[in-house]
Parts: sequence; structure tokens; C-alpha cells
Amino acid sequence: MGMTTLDPSTLLTAAVEEARAGLAEGGVPIGAALFTTDGTLLGRGHNRRVQDGDPSLHAETAAFRNAGRRPTYFDTIMVTTLSPCWYCSGLVRQFGIGHVVIGEAVTFSGGHDWLAENGVTITLLEDPECIGLMTDFIKNRPELWAEDIGAELD
Amino acid sequence: MGMTTLDPSTLLTAAVEEARAGLAEGGVPIGAALFTTDGTLLGRGHNRRVQDGDPSLHAETAAFRNAGRRPTYFDTIMVTTLSPCWYCSGLVRQFGIGHVVIGEAVTFSGGHDWLAENGVTITLLEDPECIGLMTDFIKNRPELWAEDIGAELD
Repeated sequence: MGMTTLDPSTLLTAAVEEARAGLAEGGVPIGAALFTTDGTLLGRGHNRRVQDGDPSLHAETAAFRNAGRRPTYFDTIMVTTLSPCWYCSGLVRQFGIGHVVIGEAVTFSGGHDWLAENGVTITLLEDPECIGLMTDFIKNRPELWAEDIGAELD
Repeated sequence: MGMTTLDPSTLLTAAVEEARAGLAEGGVPIGAALFTTDGTLLGRGHNRRVQDGDPSLHAETAAFRNAGRRPTYFDTIMVTTLSPCWYCSGLVRQFGIGHVVIGEAVTFSGGHDWLAENGVTITLLEDPECIGLMTDFIKNRPELWAEDIGAELD
């Protein structure tokens, strides 16, 4: 595939589509996709807390799960609409995912600085659509957002 | 329930049973269970990489998933047969799980020191049965163990 496939904003498209699908289902609007460094899609998914009653499926873990088994992940890129929380940052660090493309870290900032300190390449896009999706969600469903990150509701 | 329920070695029993079940199924022999601080079992599970072809289900994430949705986790104890990897340590940190009981950290040491630095109570038992389960597994299935932690095979 050509280099245009690896433009971070292009890769983000798959994650944003997942986030929108999650919103349409009444869920937490965060999406993710796992690619190889040559641009091949391995798996994509979105948060399934509401849809499946499953607190373990954040967007990144859903994409990772849907990619199936793989010996190592050094040659992969995790694309996510929102800064990865500690849970999803831990996933990236443990499995040696080399690069994380992040839609935005305005509405929530997780562990991406910690990942950068530990050798992971971080691309932060501050994409307006991603910011809008989460801004509206946090305003409309504060209790669901607090639950999704294990936080006490303000 | 009485205090005996909260003896860490007693809590570990549920996680060891899960690890043994995983081994009997041909899987990675790591088990976990999530309890409330009063000793109520919320969920238990074991690594399901082999059984479900699912790399996202480590023992701790399986127990967390099986516990279902919950607003917060400050009043919970994660019990696991093995030191939690970065992925599972990230789960504990993000969701504010207050206490982690660990069967052993001899055969593998993940993020439990990092959790302690971030305010999580850590109880490390160095249980001989847990050490034996992992020692045998790593010897017999080195490629599966490497895959489970995203490591390159030596």
C-alpha cells in the first residue's frame, strides 16, 4: 500500500466510524482500530459497556480482541478516538504496540505521556469531530462516562 | 462474613481453581477473582487465549468482565495467581481497585510495584502451588507464554 494509507488522519477514519456506531447504539462513543505499520487493518471495535454489559471492552481492547491472536505487536499501530486510559495504555505497553494515533486528549487524558516515556510513538491529532463526540457525550451522560473510567461522579 | 473469609490465602483459592481449570482446558494457567472488601465474590475467571482465541482475556480481565458493570471499584480486591502484567495493572489503576492479592511474582513480575507506588495495597503470597503451575507451564509451552505477554521468544 502507498504512504497515503498511513496518513494518521486517514487511519483515524476507521476509529471515528466505530465511535459513531457506538453512539448510535446508545453506548460510549469511543472507537479504535489496530493496523500493521504497512496499513493493513487487523481489527476494529468500539466500547461495548452498554451494548454487552461488558466493562472490559473499551474501544482499544475491543479492537485488540477483534484482531485475534498474534505472536507479537511491535509492527502494529493502535488508532483510537480518545487518549487511552490506564487500562488501554497498559495493553499497549504490555504487548509492545509501537505507535498510538490518538484522536484527541482534550476531554480526557489517560496514559499517553507514560507510553511516550516508555518508547511508544504517540501521534496526537486533536481532531474536532472526536472532541465534539466526547464533549457532547460527557455533557449528556455524565454518569455513564464516570462509570466507564471508574470515577466518582462529581 | 467473618474475617477468615478475608484471609488472603483463602481468597487465593478461587483464583487457583480458575488457573487449574485453564490448564485442564489446554490454556494459560492463570486465574483471578474479584471480591468486595467484605469477601463477596463479584466474578472469577481465567485466561482464555487458547480456549476462545481471545488475546484480550487475561485472568484479571476475565474476572473483571464476569463481575459485570459496577459504578466504582474502590471497595474491591483483585486476587490473581500471578503478578499482573502492565495490561492488568492498568485495569487495576484505571478502575481504582484498592487491593491486589498476588499468588506469586517469582516466574513473572509485572506492574505491581507501580501499583503500590500509586496507592494500591499489594499482598504478595509467593504461594508454592502458583509458582509450580507457572514454572511447569513456561517450561512446557514457552511459545504460548511468550505470546500471552507479547514477548519475543528467547
